[in-house]
Order: sequence, then C-alpha cells, then structure tokens
Amino acid sequence: MRKINKKSEMPMYLQVNETIREMIEDGELKEGDPLMSERDISDFLEVSRMTVNKAITKLVDEGYIVREQRKGTTVAKKRPITRYENISGLTEMTKKEGKNISNNLVSFEEIELSKWIKRELQTDDEKGYKVKRVRYVDGEPLVLETAYLSQKMCPDLTAEVVEVGSMYELYAKRYGHSISQAEQIIRPVYLKEEQAELLGQKNGDLALFIKRHTYTESEKIMEYTESIFLSQKHDLQIALS
Amino acid sequence: MRKINKKSEMPMYLQVNETIREMIEDGELKEGDPLMSERDISDFLEVSRMTVNKAITKLVDEGYIVREQRKGTTVAKKRPITRYENISGLTEMTKKEGKNISNNLVSFEEIELSKWIKRELQTDDEKGYKVKRVRYVDGEPLVLETAYLSQKMCPDLTAEVVEVGSMYELYAKRYGHSISQAEQIIRPVYLKEEQAELLGQKNGDLALFIKRHTYTESEKIMEYTESIFLSQKHDLQIALS
Repeated sequence: MRKINKKSEMPMYLQVNETIREMIEDGELKEGDPLMSERDISDFLEVSRMTVNKAITKLVDEGYIVREQRKGTTVAKKRPITRYENISGLTEMTKKEGKNISNNLVSFEEIELSKWIKRELQTDDEKGYKVKRVRYVDGEPLVLETAYLSQKMCPDLTAEVVEVGSMYELYAKRYGHSISQAEQIIRPVYLKEEQAELLGQKNGDLALFIKRHTYTESEKIMEYTESIFLSQKHDLQIALS
Repeated sequence: MRKINKKSEMPMYLQVNETIREMIEDGELKEGDPLMSERDISDFLEVSRMTVNKAITKLVDEGYIVREQRKGTTVAKKRPITRYENISGLTEMTKKEGKNISNNLVSFEEIELSKWIKRELQTDDEKGYKVKRVRYVDGEPLVLETAYLSQKMCPDLTAEVVEVGSMYELYAKRYGHSISQAEQIIRPVYLKEEQAELLGQKNGDLALFIKRHTYTESEKIMEYTESIFLSQKHDLQIALS
C-alpha cells in the first residue's frame, strides 16, 4: 500500500480512496479479496478512522468494494458490460461477445390495445400482444422486458414462437420486417416487488428503466418495449458517433 | 372519466390507471391540474379506495402525477427530452431544439493526473485539468459534469477560457481536435449531498450517472467526464441505428 502525501492539497480521504482503488486496478487486491480492516488501514496510513471510512464509502459508491452482512468488506467483481453499439438486439450483441443468452417467458397475452399503447405503437390496430420475458446473460438475470406489439405487424404470434429466442430474428424471418433503428429513453428507478422477484433481486434496489421504440426499415414501429435493466452488476454502455 | 369494465381480465387498478392516464394524454386533465380525490374516483368508478390508491401510485411512478406535501396530487409537467442523437455536445443539441443552455463553472483545477485518471485518458501525461460545471437548460439545472483533461491535449487551459461555453467548440477552435465519437456507461444513482446542493435538488433523489470517454478523429481520448444527469424532470433519450 502506497503511503499518502500529507502535504498535498488533495483531501486525505480522496488520497486514501485512490490508494485502494489503485491496488484493485493493479491487481494487488483481487475480486472477492477481503479488504484490510479500517483500523489497519488507518494505522498504516496514519490517518483517522473517519477518513478511512469516508474513503471506503466512496469506493462502495464507485462499485469497487462491496459491503455484505456476513462476508464483510470485499473487492467487488468486475462489472460486465452490455454494449448497445448499434441496433442489434441483445441476442446478437451477446453472441458477438461470446456470451450465452437465455430467456424465460414470464407471460404471453393477446390483448386489446388500449389508447396509450396505440399511441406508443402509432397504430389504429385494436388487437395485439404483450410479451414479458426475463433475459439472462451467462445464467445471470439482466433484463425484465415487456414488449407490446400490434397484431397487424405480427399476425398469429404465439407463445411457442416467442419462446424460441431472438424477437428481431422472428420479425425478420416470420414477418419480413427488418429493424433499422430505435429510440430509447432511460430513467433510474427502484425495483418494485414483482420486478425484484422475477429478477431475483431485492425490492427497492436501483435499476434502469428503458422505454424503447423500435422502427422497421419502412419506418413503422415494430415494437414498443419497457425494460428493467439490472445495472448493479452489469454496465449499460452506449456508443455514439 | 371513462367507466371501467368489471368483466375484463385486466386487473382493476390497471384499468383505473389507464383511464386516468388517457385523461392526461387526451388533455382532459392538464399540467398542474389537481387530480380528483381518491374518494371521488372510487365513488365514480365503483371500485375500492385501495384500488384507486394503487392506480395513482403507479401513475406517480410513471411520472404522470406528482404528489406534493402542500399542493396535493396534481398532473405532472411534461418531461422535456434531451436527445443524444449523435456526438454533438449539449450546447449544439439544445441550440438545435431552440433551448437555451447556460453553464456555471463550479471549479477549475490544474491537477496531477493520478493513476486511474491516466488510465481513463489513456495517457502518460503527468498534468492535466479537472473542470466541474453545472449546466442549465432554460434556466433549470440538468447536469453536473466533471471533465478530466490532459495537458498535452489542451495546453494552457484556463478557467476564463472554459467559462465561455461549449467545450467541444473550444477543443476544435483552440486545439484543432474535432470530436468523432464517444462511449457512455449509464448507471442509476442517488444524489449525494454536494451534488444535490449544486443541482438544487434533494439529497438522495434518483439520477443517472454517466461516464463518458470522448474520442477525437485521430482516435485519441479528448476528455473523460463523469456526469450526474437529473432525470426526474428531464428525459435522457438515445437514438440507435
């Protein structure tokens, strides 16, 4: 552990924070390793316990360190990244990265399209589908996705067909609609009870809420989805150019 | 107010939720209008108070309705949207939409680049700058942005120069670096005390944390920024194609 510079203008807790952060980034401390006790750090660096505590709290906020009830304070796992580089769906993206995606169909319903869904889908269609899936990357739950579709865009959709895998592939192969762009609105939310349960998380955890309109090449709206993205263990990355 | 269908399979609270949502979307209820009391709604629709309460809680979650201590329950203001369609900075984007952006320079520091900042900037440079700004759209605080820059990429930077306006314009005009792409990582966070204060918000409010690496045309990292984006009143929209 690198000593800190007491003459520096940088606040002490920030220096302590950086010292530990570097040990993690340099691999001196590895995923799952227990952190030294606050007392040991405070003794070694000759700073107050409060300073150490403030530094560690910042590390927790930054995702470098995890505090757990029984295990104590350990180095966090590296957050895998989900990259939305372009319009390709989660299936294609994760395949490209050598990850394995699986889906669990929570519900499939034929629905009357209510006024607000019609507006989201920009359709006059009266009937459609609501498809709710939990999506897993390498066995870990990542997204709870609810898709709304109009019957005209994908007639005779069934639960069996949906269960197979990529919806984008389904739209292209079964209905001849290829996806060309999407618009996303992203908000921070708390997980509600049902969502937390489906995703195997704690009620009230933070997550991202993503509203997405997906457009076909002929500029029709193919689907409107509302997703809950677990960003605690997984980073959502978006490239712009 | 449209009556609900008690024979429908759709849960009652969802029907109540949609009925009110439609009144807002159709303009029957306007921004700032008080909502009817839960009792009145429950009497009119012939459903329990609990059902109405659940429907309204969902509307609050969805951002249609605001509950405030003194004013009671009112229809929320429409959320303005900030669109990240491409790489153009906030200044250009908001100008295009006819909005007025202003900046408040919180701090400007010449810093020693610590190990983690060097890594983020992919530089061996020892010195650089840390520029912290609050950015306002039409007078409302939207983002607290902390930019890290290396001295080599922008020598002799000063607070006066930074205060003028668009950093991207500055990079191009003063240093000849034009921006070509960026990568963003987006996470949900709680506002911390200092952030809340600078943004005029409540401690603990939800916000988006955005880590952004911005690249020049010659594929060097121009800046690394950490931003707190107020998504409570403002939507972050990202287009993909």
